[in-house]
Formats: sequence, C-alpha cells, structure tokens
Amino acid sequence: MIEMRSDTFTLPTPQMLSAMTQAALGDDVYGEDPTVNRLEELAAGIVGKAAACLMPSGTMANLAALLVHVPRGGKVLVGNESDIYLYEAGGASVCGGIVYEPIPTQPDGTLAMDDLAVALPPDPDDPQFALPGLICVENTHNRMGGRVLSRAYLAQLRRFADGHAIPVHMDGARIFNAAVAMGVGAEQLAAHADSIQFCLSKGLSAPIGSILAGEADFVEKARRVRKMLGGGMRQAGVFASAGQVALTSMIDRLAEDHALAAQLAAGLADVEGIDVDASAITTNIVLFRVTAKELDDNSFLRAVRQRGLAIAEFGHGRIRAVTHRGLSAADVSSAVAIVADVVRELGRGRAPLSESRNGR
Amino acid sequence: MIEMRSDTFTLPTPQMLSAMTQAALGDDVYGEDPTVNRLEELAAGIVGKAAACLMPSGTMANLAALLVHVPRGGKVLVGNESDIYLYEAGGASVCGGIVYEPIPTQPDGTLAMDDLAVALPPDPDDPQFALPGLICVENTHNRMGGRVLSRAYLAQLRRFADGHAIPVHMDGARIFNAAVAMGVGAEQLAAHADSIQFCLSKGLSAPIGSILAGEADFVEKARRVRKMLGGGMRQAGVFASAGQVALTSMIDRLAEDHALAAQLAAGLADVEGIDVDASAITTNIVLFRVTAKELDDNSFLRAVRQRGLAIAEFGHGRIRAVTHRGLSAADVSSAVAIVADVVRELGRGRAPLSESRNGR
Amino acid sequence: MIEMRSDTFTLPTPQMLSAMTQAALGDDVYGEDPTVNRLEELAAGIVGKAAACLMPSGTMANLAALLVHVPRGGKVLVGNESDIYLYEAGGASVCGGIVYEPIPTQPDGTLAMDDLAVALPPDPDDPQFALPGLICVENTHNRMGGRVLSRAYLAQLRRFADGHAIPVHMDGARIFNAAVAMGVGAEQLAAHADSIQFCLSKGLSAPIGSILAGEADFVEKARRVRKMLGGGMRQAGVFASAGQVALTSMIDRLAEDHALAAQLAAGLADVEGIDVDASAITTNIVLFRVTAKELDDNSFLRAVRQRGLAIAEFGHGRIRAVTHRGLSAADVSSAVAIVADVVRELGRGRAPLSESRNGR
Amino acid sequence: MIEMRSDTFTLPTPQMLSAMTQAALGDDVYGEDPTVNRLEELAAGIVGKAAACLMPSGTMANLAALLVHVPRGGKVLVGNESDIYLYEAGGASVCGGIVYEPIPTQPDGTLAMDDLAVALPPDPDDPQFALPGLICVENTHNRMGGRVLSRAYLAQLRRFADGHAIPVHMDGARIFNAAVAMGVGAEQLAAHADSIQFCLSKGLSAPIGSILAGEADFVEKARRVRKMLGGGMRQAGVFASAGQVALTSMIDRLAEDHALAAQLAAGLADVEGIDVDASAITTNIVLFRVTAKELDDNSFLRAVRQRGLAIAEFGHGRIRAVTHRGLSAADVSSAVAIVADVVRELGRGRAPLSESRNGR
Repeated sequence: MIEMRSDTFTLPTPQMLSAMTQAALGDDVYGEDPTVNRLEELAAGIVGKAAACLMPSGTMANLAALLVHVPRGGKVLVGNESDIYLYEAGGASVCGGIVYEPIPTQPDGTLAMDDLAVALPPDPDDPQFALPGLICVENTHNRMGGRVLSRAYLAQLRRFADGHAIPVHMDGARIFNAAVAMGVGAEQLAAHADSIQFCLSKGLSAPIGSILAGEADFVEKARRVRKMLGGGMRQAGVFASAGQVALTSMIDRLAEDHALAAQLAAGLADVEGIDVDASAITTNIVLFRVTAKELDDNSFLRAVRQRGLAIAEFGHGRIRAVTHRGLSAADVSSAVAIVADVVRELGRGRAPLSESRNGR
Repeated sequence: MIEMRSDTFTLPTPQMLSAMTQAALGDDVYGEDPTVNRLEELAAGIVGKAAACLMPSGTMANLAALLVHVPRGGKVLVGNESDIYLYEAGGASVCGGIVYEPIPTQPDGTLAMDDLAVALPPDPDDPQFALPGLICVENTHNRMGGRVLSRAYLAQLRRFADGHAIPVHMDGARIFNAAVAMGVGAEQLAAHADSIQFCLSKGLSAPIGSILAGEADFVEKARRVRKMLGGGMRQAGVFASAGQVALTSMIDRLAEDHALAAQLAAGLADVEGIDVDASAITTNIVLFRVTAKELDDNSFLRAVRQRGLAIAEFGHGRIRAVTHRGLSAADVSSAVAIVADVVRELGRGRAPLSESRNGR
Repeated sequence: MIEMRSDTFTLPTPQMLSAMTQAALGDDVYGEDPTVNRLEELAAGIVGKAAACLMPSGTMANLAALLVHVPRGGKVLVGNESDIYLYEAGGASVCGGIVYEPIPTQPDGTLAMDDLAVALPPDPDDPQFALPGLICVENTHNRMGGRVLSRAYLAQLRRFADGHAIPVHMDGARIFNAAVAMGVGAEQLAAHADSIQFCLSKGLSAPIGSILAGEADFVEKARRVRKMLGGGMRQAGVFASAGQVALTSMIDRLAEDHALAAQLAAGLADVEGIDVDASAITTNIVLFRVTAKELDDNSFLRAVRQRGLAIAEFGHGRIRAVTHRGLSAADVSSAVAIVADVVRELGRGRAPLSESRNGR
Repeated sequence: MIEMRSDTFTLPTPQMLSAMTQAALGDDVYGEDPTVNRLEELAAGIVGKAAACLMPSGTMANLAALLVHVPRGGKVLVGNESDIYLYEAGGASVCGGIVYEPIPTQPDGTLAMDDLAVALPPDPDDPQFALPGLICVENTHNRMGGRVLSRAYLAQLRRFADGHAIPVHMDGARIFNAAVAMGVGAEQLAAHADSIQFCLSKGLSAPIGSILAGEADFVEKARRVRKMLGGGMRQAGVFASAGQVALTSMIDRLAEDHALAAQLAAGLADVEGIDVDASAITTNIVLFRVTAKELDDNSFLRAVRQRGLAIAEFGHGRIRAVTHRGLSAADVSSAVAIVADVVRELGRGRAPLSESRNGR
C-alpha cells in the first residue's frame, strides 16, 4: 500500500528504535527523566524559546497553550479552516470555558487583519462581549494545502497583536516543513509568536510527541495544565529519545518530502480529469480535485485504494495526498499511474461531493 | 430625549405598576409564588408549549436552553450575527463546555441549509469532531433589522433538524413582533422549535423577565440550571405580575411600534445623506447608514444626541433606531427632523466607520 | 399557617410596595437605572466596601464572587455545612472549573485554622495539586443554627488568609442578623473579608435581590460575570427600590426576630420530648430535635403542619424554625403549643431519622 | 541510591525494550496500530471487561472515566484521601463541570455506606442539590498504605450503588497488587465496578501507559474524551508493546514486591524511634513514623538520602516507602540499616510535622 493519507503514518527510523532502547530513563512526573529534560532543552533552542514541554500530542500542546493564554470566558481567534478549530474536539471550550471565534481563512492560510479587527469588541468594558485573549495561526497550513505563512505576514500579525495586547500562538505542527521550504531556521518563524507547538511525529518520524515552547513561566503553567489533562507520563524518555533523533537528524530531509510532493503534483497535473495547481504546492501536502465526469470522489477513493494507493477526502470537494519519509519517487510515480488509470477507466462524469472536513 | 437606542428602555405601564402592588406573592424558590406560577402557565399556552419557566433575563433563558439541549463538548450552530453569539458573553462555553459554531447569517436573518450542513461532522464517530447538539435561530432578527423568519423557512429548518436529529431553539426575544407582523399567533412560529425564549421586557414593556418554554421535562431541567446560575428569585411575583399584564394586553399594540418604524424609515428615506431601505422594515427596528460626505458616525451620533435623539451605532457602518411604546408619531417626526438637520449642517463627506458590534 | 420554614417567605412591606411604584427607572443593563445605582451605592456604604452590584439572588452573588476570585482550576475552601457547598448546585465547578474543598464546620460555624492549613498544598509548585484561591465563611451560619462568627475569629481568619495570600469571601446572606446580635455595624464584620454577599430578601423583607460588595475592580469583574450568567435585568429599579427601603428601615428590627427566636427556643425547651439548646440561639434560627419516643420526624412535621405550623427537616436529625417579620409573639406561642400538643399526642418513641441536608 | 519514593520509578525490562523495537506499528489515532489494538484486547480480558482503551496516564484514565460517567453539574463521591481527589489537579471540575464530594476514608481504604448515604440529596428534585453521578474507590489504596479492598466490601458497595442507580469506578492503579495479595484474578475485583483504571507502569514496570476498561459504549465515549484531552498518540505501539509484556509476565512477580515490603516493615519495626504497624502491610507500600525525639521528618529524610535511601514524606506525619522490581532483599536490608543509623545518630526528640499531602 502506498500510504499518502497523512505523514502521521511515518514509522520510527532504526536510529530512533536504537535510541529508544538505550535512553537514560527516570520518572518524568518527578521531572527526573534525563532524556526528556534534554529533549525539552534541545527543542526550546531550535525554536528560539526559553523553555519547552513535551506533550503526548499536538492536540494537548495546543490545548495547554490556549488554557494558559486565555482566561475562562475569553475568546480565541482562530482560523475557520484550522486544525485547532476543526479537529480538536472543542477542547478549549470544554476544559477552559473559552469561546472559539473562527476567522475566515485566506487561500494562503493567513487571517486578514481586517477580519481579526472585526472580532475585537467595540467596547471592551461592555460585559456582553467575550474578550479576545489569543490569536492562533497555523504554519504550515494543513487545510490550505501545506501553505507557508510568509515572514512579512507574521511580522504584520505580530504588530497587530501587539497593538491590541493579544498574544499569538502558532500551531506549527509542521513548522519545520515551513522552515525548510523557506530556507530559514524555525526560530525565525517562531519569533513572531509568543508560543509555538510542533510535532515530533509527522514528517520528523518520531512515533509520539509534540513540543510546546514559549517563555519560562508560560511553560511552567503549561506543565500544570498538562498534569491536569493527564499528559504527565512516567519514563517518557523511551520516546523522547526518538524525538531527539528527530530534531537532530530529520529536519533537513523534509526537503525530500517536498520534492516528492512537487513530483506528485506535476504528475497529477498531466492527468486529464484531475485538477491540481502544481504551483501552489510548497511543502508536503498536495490537494487536488477529481473533475472527470461520472466519477464521484468516494468511488475514486475506493478504486485507487483497491489498486494500492491510500489517500483521503478532505472537504470542499478536495482530495489530500501527503508525502513523507515512507515514500520513494517510485511510489509517487506509481501513485500518479494509479490515479491516471482510475480516472481513465471510471471517469466520464461526476456529481459534486458534499462538503466535509475529514483528515488531519 | 427621544429614546430610540432600544425597546429595552420601555417603562412599565400604570396597569403593571398597579398589578405589582396587588400581586399574591410567595417564595418562588419553593415553587410557591402563585403569580409566577400563573404567569408560567399563561406564557406556555401563548407559545403552545407544555411548560414554561420565568427567567431574570433573555440571556439566562437562552443559556439555560443551550445547557439543557447540548451536553458538554457538543456544538451549538448559531448565526454569526445572532445575539446569542455576539452579546451573551460566551456563557455556553463558560458554563457548559459547549462550542459555538457561527453560521453565516443571510440578509433575511436565516441560516442556509447548505451552511448548516457544512457544520455537520463528516464522520460522527471520529472523536476529533465536536458533535452538533442544537441549532439556534433568532426571530425577529435583531442585527438583520428586525427581520421576520418566514413560516416556510421555519418548516424547512424543522425538516433539516429532524433529519439530523438535532433540536431547534428559537431566540424569540421579540417573537411577538414577528407574530404581529405576520398576523399569526406566536404558537404557530414556536411550533417549529423545540424550545423558545421570549422577553416580557422590550416591546411588551414589563420591567424584568423572560420566559423559556418547551416540553415539560426540558423545562424541569431548565429550572435546575436556573437555580445553579442564580436565577431563582424569592417573591418574583412582584414583576411576574407585570409580565401577566404584558402578555394579556401588550401584544397587539406592537403593531403601533411597527407603524412608527415604518414612519421613521419613510422619513429617513427622504433625507439626502441617509441610506435606508424602507421596504425592508417589517417590525420595530430601523437600520440606516449616514452616507453624507465628511460626516462620520460618531460625530453624527453626538450631534443628534445633543439635539435630543438617542440612537446608536450598530456595526457594519450602520445606525440602529428602535421604536417602542414610549414613542409617539410626533417623536418620530422630530427624530427625522433632527437627523435631517444634522446631516444638512454637518454632512459633506465622511470616512468609513470601522466595523463593530454594538447594541442589542 | 404559621410560616417558620424560612425567613425567605417574608413579604414586602407597604412602604416597599409604594416605593416600587414610584421608583425612577431606566435600563440597568446600560447602567442607567437610577434606583439601582443609588441602591448599589447605599449598599456598598453599609458594608464599608468601595462598590457593590445588585444580583437577582444570593446564589448568583456567591457564584460571581467565586468566579472572580478563583481562576479556572483553583480551589475554594468552604465549610462542609455551608450553603455555598450544599445548596448552590455546584455552580462554581460547572461555570468556573473550580474545585470545592469542604472544610469541617465547627459547631460555632467557624472553620478551624488547622483544618484550613491541611488544605494548603504541601508544594504549590507541584502541578498535581489544585491551588487554593479563596476561603469562604458564612455569617450568620445557617446550618449551625444562625450562629454569629466572632470578631476575634474573623480577625484570626484574616491573618491566616493574608499569611497565605488567599482572599476571603463572606457569605453574609444574614449578615445584618449577625451585626444586630453583636450590636455592631455590618461594616465591622465585612472589614475582615475581601468581598461580601448579603440578601435584601430574607429578614430584610425585600421581595428580590442580593448585593455583592468589594473593591471597585472586583465589582467590575463581578458585573461581567453577572451579565454572562444572565443576571443583568432591565428596569431592576422596580425591586431595587424595595431594597433601599430594606436597607434604610429594616435592619434594626431584626432584633425583634431574634427575640421571637429566643421566645420560641425557651418555649420548646419546656416541652418534654423536644431537645433544644436555648442558650445557643443568638439570631433568628432555632434548631431542635424531636426526642419523643415513637414519633419520627416526618410524622411530627406532618402533624404540626396539619395544625397550622410550617417547619422543616434540616439534616442530622434536626428541625429548623426561622423567625421573621411575618410572625408575632402570639404566633410563636401558638407554635410552641402546637409542638407540645403533637409531641404529647403522638410521641412515645421514635426511630432515628436518616441523615439529610434540606432547607436553606 | 536505593529508590523507594515510588514504584513509578521502575524501569522497563530488557524484554520490554526488545518488544519496543520489534512492535508492529501504525497510527493509533486512526485506530490502526496493531500493537495497541492487541494490548487493549488483552487488557480488557484481564479485568473481565468488554473493552479497554490505552491512556497516556492514570490521571487521564480516571479523568476520562469521570467525564463519561458524570454529566456536567453532577457530583462524584470520592474518598477524601484518594489520589483522584488529592493528586489529579481537580481535572473533573475543570474539564467536566463536575463537583467532587470527598467522603471520609476509613483506615482500611473503604468508604462507609453511611457516609455515602449522607452525600445523597434528601430530595433529588430540588434543584439546589448537585446530583451524585459516580462513586469512586481506590484499590489498592495508596494513602492508606496499599490496603486492599475486600471482596465483601466491594459487593456491599455494588449493592449500595445499584440501589441508588449510581455507577462505580475503581481507580485500580495498583489493582494487580490487590489481586496478587488476595490470590484472585483482577477480573474478580473489577467485576464490582462499572469501569476500572489500572497502570501498566508502577509495579508492572512498563514505561508509560494506563488502561481504562468497561462496557463497549463506555469505552467508545472515553476514546472521544481522550482525543479531546489530547491523549491520542500516533505510533503508541512503541510503548504498548511494553504494556503487553507487563500484562503477560509481570503480574505474578508483584508478590516479590510484597515480600520486600514485609521485610522492610519487619526490619523497621525493630528500630527504636520508628513506629510501623507491620501487620497492616499487605502489598508494596510501607507507611511509618519517626518517633525518635529531636528528629524532625525533614532532617530524617535528608539524612537517609545522604546515606543513599530515597523515601518521602506522605502527610499526617508519615513517611512512605514503596517496594518494586528495582529493589532486592539486600537493598531492603540496607534501607533498614540506614534508617536505624540515622535514628540512632540524630534522634533524641522531635517536633510534630505539619500536615501535608505529598507523594503518589
């Protein structure tokens, strides 16, 4: 099976497996796992923050960030197409009494300043308004096709946020994809945010774990939230060791995933009945549409799967394919061939797909 | 001062004041205030529901409805221009762990079925999605200019909701304005909703109080929520008596408020430098814009206020004027004259007003 | 019926009813009800605080206080026999994500410093502990029989709280009963607390309303919470006017209620088969037990009610009788006679009553 | 260092490390990690439940159980000395709007039926009462010295709970210690509870992970909560593999830990200046007091640590020592010798230790 549903399917490298068996361990709930401690120090440094905290998932890292930044009854301004809003089960409302205010997401993954301004209360002293306590951006932006937020945009957002004394959290689950695509260090992107979350899994291939980084006191508060949510783990060094391998040896190779995505997009662009904007592919996510008549998306997805290609529906009538370390150029060529075959054989006309929001 | 900021400024009638001093009283926390009990029975009947509960405010009535309908972690689909979403301080997230999902509001105050459908999870079994537990509509619709939801729309919404097994709550703060404008009983409008909230204050002129009505077990649960929120009041009969007067003698006269609003809109339509769609005015709310050059909204509002007219900014560059029992046709004529004077004297050009969300 | 179930059954005085019809009114949600504003100023002064806010109930006043003082995830140390813990439906956990930590209540209504100290975390930096954010005391103490907290105790508590930088909230639903019993001004009792709640209903006889008082910024935050909970009311002056009468003319007469309670206790002490400690009665609450054999509490309560006396079970095998403005010395004599009759006729032996927590 | 602070310090066995590198992996967020799936099936079977879910910690397993069992505003009856109440940061109030009602814990770790009965509302229809939605018990009981709940007690609790239609959750973090001590299968203990949590870490020595087991639909709901809290992990098979080893090969050897605890208690009982009830030691936790004069607990703990023994203060003036796989009989002998040396050298008189709640 050519697995392109997500880069979360990446398996640990041999070096990671080896590290996992040799890691010095302790009880991280007591703060005594040396491997976790070293990973957190390493991770903070890579994104240029004072401190970092290992989390079992990006969901918890984002949730902890929201709970620390936003008091009970505050609002978080978050993209209406963001993973935080769509895929994290409303945790901030449940666990934090926080109101999500979804802001329209631009095609390039940004939130427009005018749209953010509308969400500010006309009169902050009027108690009928929930007060904004945080702005979240996502970089790279999953549902906008792995788009990278430009540094100019991030600087503009920073000025807006500072002007209104609202902190910024960056959901950087794939921040290193952005950094590699832009040829800069992740710390240059994270500098525009008060806090950042990134995943050790996904393209970096560690089996488990995300990092939440920010100022020292922010991270201390996040540790408290982590404990409350049940994210404190005992000998977490067993997978933190894999996280260290991820951060020290897996970042640069994300360029290979991007090359595969470009190869995939270029290949799909040549398939009649497939609509893809190859020029929009900048990282490891390829969004495309099946335009062949008489071929609906579900039939298409079933058919390619039967031929050995796993991809998934992604809302707004789109299909998502994600490249990662588990794929080769030959896999990508095969994937293109499978798609072409299916479209040729089955496609002559199609009904529009109902709107949906699948896939992370 | 000609008070047109809101119909919430209405004062109790002499009959209400008289009723307040003669009401039979008891401790409503024990369920023993006969005046409250009679009001609740009366109110339930008027909207055709099995039971009703007196609340200190529409905010609490809506909040209680949301908490009863939606479990922790569920979503409420609510208009992005609705009072529930904009003006109630996020109470459902704070007190209920409920996620607001704002749905685009159409110019006629409706939520489109397609937009509601997008908010349904593609896969309800996937735990990353908060599950929708309620749809809210607002009737009349405040920020859409007092628009009335048609019975055809309500029936369509009911079918959609039933098809997805999601209940419907109607924020009918001004439901009797809708009923009077349509020439039907309020129960015919409420029939399409599982629960309804309406205000005894506003146009009906009672000093305090809103009603939440629905099935008997729904209302029992709402009473429990009311107690928890602190809405249980002792001798509430003192204002419930005014509420009885409101329901028995004040509904039909809302037509007078509508006539005043029509008069106001017609008058304003003749003022150069004022943009108003008089044909859109169906109840007691008039939205208009100051288009005169060199006259910004704040200057305009200050100037009319100095001349004795209180109105308020209403977001999207609009001004809102609300008619009610405290106004006469002469007041409306004076208001038009004041606006005309101010525009003539001050207006030659204007800057666009920043977006905002004031006024209820 | 001689109503001794609670002083919440008091009806408004003729002066209150008159004030209600003559009050200057406005929309308090806009802060423009002059009667409410005057009441709040008056109320703040009486308890010696900078500001005050009118609430629809004591439950909401307490809930707002807890939400302002204690952040999400904090603990409130509260008496295990307090109304806040037992009778307010867990609102602080629901609406605030606050943990109640019940502290043993001493027979005199106090919380012992040693017991409070145990509730402090051994290591505040250890994230497994919820951190205490507030101590609540109740004065007079309902379930401890209307006991008054001594000034020496309040000063001791203040020192303890200051020593640990934890604020103190006083549930002073019946604070004027305490003040009158001690012969001091309520402000002298409130001085030991950061915030205080007291009821305009109960012995003061207003139909509705409680006051939350404290520092100016505390009260501003409480207004925000009040709006969110749905406690903002329009022409609240209609009952605030009664509240003004309560505060200006009803406090001193609470001594009459205390005299009636003393009369009642003395009378009951002479009834064989009734156990009451007359010396413990200091305000308007009388707790007693039926010790007559073969007479269980439910039978006793039914029997006295049939003879015209309404009282209620109160947990721990106790019966509560509360005196108030609606009762005369003759009523009290009748009540004693009814009890004596019932015990004589029915009582020869009794089964123990199951534990419970009824009555406020 | 002889590490006796907790059995959470156990390190994975060589067999576990080996299993971790050989486990078949997948993305557990998609439900496709075969090792996790096999572990969950295995775990459910061992405690005799229909289904089970892997959690990152016992804290999250307990929290998810509480959130599934208890609706917003409900109460959980939980021991006042339980880990859930003391050491889990109030998560159920924060994330679930649930009220903790702490019940006195008996010396044998049980909650008395009479005490549970007091926590039931006298009138469930009265909205002032939060309604009980769950009873939690802890087995073995940490703060009561590893005490095992008898099957007779569990059966009695089950009848009580059934009689009031309240479910029972067992915090069985160390349930296998109980089962081994009693010579029964864990499923016989779990049979009295609707849901059970147990740790793969602690004595079983897996590095990470706890299991929540119960009925199939309960577990499905718990998976939803897990996702919301951020407990969904990608290739969780890396440590689930160790969990499989724990469940298949580490349970019976807990008897060795119990033998070491008995050896420790017997040794300490012979030390003058140490107070320990050796007969109360039934599993792997030893609680004792330093009674030697002039030796306070902090000095004692520092002194033994300097000599190579790590133990910790445990509240109520007690010290806790926990035995586990990382210790030998020789270590225990050394520990006794260290304690004896310190008491002999430093102890002649001591001040009472302040109350506290450290250690899990």
